[in-house]
Amino acid sequence: MSTLRVPDAVFTPNQDAEELRKAFQGFGTDEEAVIWVLGHRNASQRKKIRDAYMQLYNENLIDRLHSELSGDFRNAVVLWTYDPAERDAKLANEVLKKKRKDLKHLQVIIEIACASSPYHLVAMREAYCSLFNCSLEEDIVSEIPFPERKILLGLVSSFRYDKEMVYMDVANSEAAKLHEAIKAKQLDHDQVVYILGTRNFHQLRETFRCYERNYGIPIKQDIKNCGDADLENLLKKVISCIDTPEKHFAEVIRNSIVGLGTDEDSLTRAIVTRAEVDLKKVREEYSSMYKDDLDKDVIGDTSGYYKDFLLTLLGSKF
Amino acid sequence: MSTLRVPDAVFTPNQDAEELRKAFQGFGTDEEAVIWVLGHRNASQRKKIRDAYMQLYNENLIDRLHSELSGDFRNAVVLWTYDPAERDAKLANEVLKKKRKDLKHLQVIIEIACASSPYHLVAMREAYCSLFNCSLEEDIVSEIPFPERKILLGLVSSFRYDKEMVYMDVANSEAAKLHEAIKAKQLDHDQVVYILGTRNFHQLRETFRCYERNYGIPIKQDIKNCGDADLENLLKKVISCIDTPEKHFAEVIRNSIVGLGTDEDSLTRAIVTRAEVDLKKVREEYSSMYKDDLDKDVIGDTSGYYKDFLLTLLGSKF
Repeated sequence: MSTLRVPDAVFTPNQDAEELRKAFQGFGTDEEAVIWVLGHRNASQRKKIRDAYMQLYNENLIDRLHSELSGDFRNAVVLWTYDPAERDAKLANEVLKKKRKDLKHLQVIIEIACASSPYHLVAMREAYCSLFNCSLEEDIVSEIPFPERKILLGLVSSFRYDKEMVYMDVANSEAAKLHEAIKAKQLDHDQVVYILGTRNFHQLRETFRCYERNYGIPIKQDIKNCGDADLENLLKKVISCIDTPEKHFAEVIRNSIVGLGTDEDSLTRAIVTRAEVDLKKVREEYSSMYKDDLDKDVIGDTSGYYKDFLLTLLGSKF
Repeated sequence: MSTLRVPDAVFTPNQDAEELRKAFQGFGTDEEAVIWVLGHRNASQRKKIRDAYMQLYNENLIDRLHSELSGDFRNAVVLWTYDPAERDAKLANEVLKKKRKDLKHLQVIIEIACASSPYHLVAMREAYCSLFNCSLEEDIVSEIPFPERKILLGLVSSFRYDKEMVYMDVANSEAAKLHEAIKAKQLDHDQVVYILGTRNFHQLRETFRCYERNYGIPIKQDIKNCGDADLENLLKKVISCIDTPEKHFAEVIRNSIVGLGTDEDSLTRAIVTRAEVDLKKVREEYSSMYKDDLDKDVIGDTSGYYKDFLLTLLGSKF
């Protein structure tokens, strides 16, 4: 499901680091070489390149990329070059330190908590502690008001069972509990937090299917008029990320492109964070949801090296 | 702070595995050899011995120990031979599957959550998923009633910052929040759960000191008459495990020994789980709290190979 195209025979990390060094030296930067190397290496290869670069030149590769590149291209390459856990810790921290935190920002944390493996989530929490000298949970408690705090804290604290283990009786009884909470307009009820924050993703998808079967309406549509539109929208986002992450990211990309101007931060995040996860499925969903071609839309809304880099990650430029 | 005595020159894992195999073969078991090998190896060496044993004899070492040994000696050796994360996952699961779960049982989960490093806690949650096909949190939600559920869930879900980073203003303001909750008899208030479940241990110890300084009474003593004795005692145990784990375990050992009969399960757990952590400090606390010698008391209450094995882990038999 990854769109990343790694050549069969790659260079050694040392050779890649040397190639990057050459790209930085002299007048200007050879951006194409940067794309050529980093845009075709997976996370573990990029880690080895970072290490090799530090070993050979006693310099942090990411710092150097930061000073050599600029604009959206720089942001995308830097984000891509980070270790994925560290990258997501930084994305979450950026959100938490923003003055205004609307859903467009909070969804970044939801994506990390609900559209990642438990191993990635916990590696990200570990990276968060190392980078920011406090736990992710501490920052959520101090930066996010109720009732969003309660939901997000439950989600980021989870270490879910990650295999397919689905019980129909649990799906039915928990669909009923969710339905009860929604009817009572108590979207932050403990039961809601426990169900969404502890069950494995396969179980939750079955619970959502049961909800629709038993109550005649998809749970996301049933969440309305609960008296707190922000909380309603947050919870819908949570359900989307758990139920159909590929649709969620197709929507993030679409929203970043449509309308006046482009939301490059969101576009970059969606492509960089999903390239090695499910970007192929995101592209398929995009096409079926919007009857448009994702790659063509990216080409239409971006330019220069930024465009080239995104297309490389999308696997449509080699 | 570990009491474990590992010889300077140890055998290779293969040699240790062979030694154990010899101890199992023929008529009867050479228990002394089992103690001699396993009682002097640290967690990473024991892992290598388990692997080597499997490699050499295509047999699970722990299964073999189980069939060769018996009684409390068997329980102690088996518990000790497990990977520590797996061992604690099993201990927690045993508690959760018990019909009656009083504080004596629930404290096992509190110990794992509040007297371990965040890395150990998360490794234990991972092991729990692998062993029991569901998350620890799911079992807590389904097996533990309110309000204990809320407290325990907050504690086991934490991934705390693990370095010493203490803010006096936080200690003061959170001591005030805890004081407020205690005065309002709301021991399961969200604030209590957030503070105890997200802050690093050093910060929490300072918060407890502030509590005593600002309100003239140690927080543990101030928790009383809140209308729910079980919850009061649970919370006191949480505070003990965070504040002074060595005192907590000295108390566990003392309680397992005093009175009629011995509570071997608790005695074994305390010595096996702390031997590589802080058993030296536990021994010192024991002596200062009870004016008795821990080793002497263990000798007085146990016998045979079980006694020899505990004393080996206590470092007083080589």
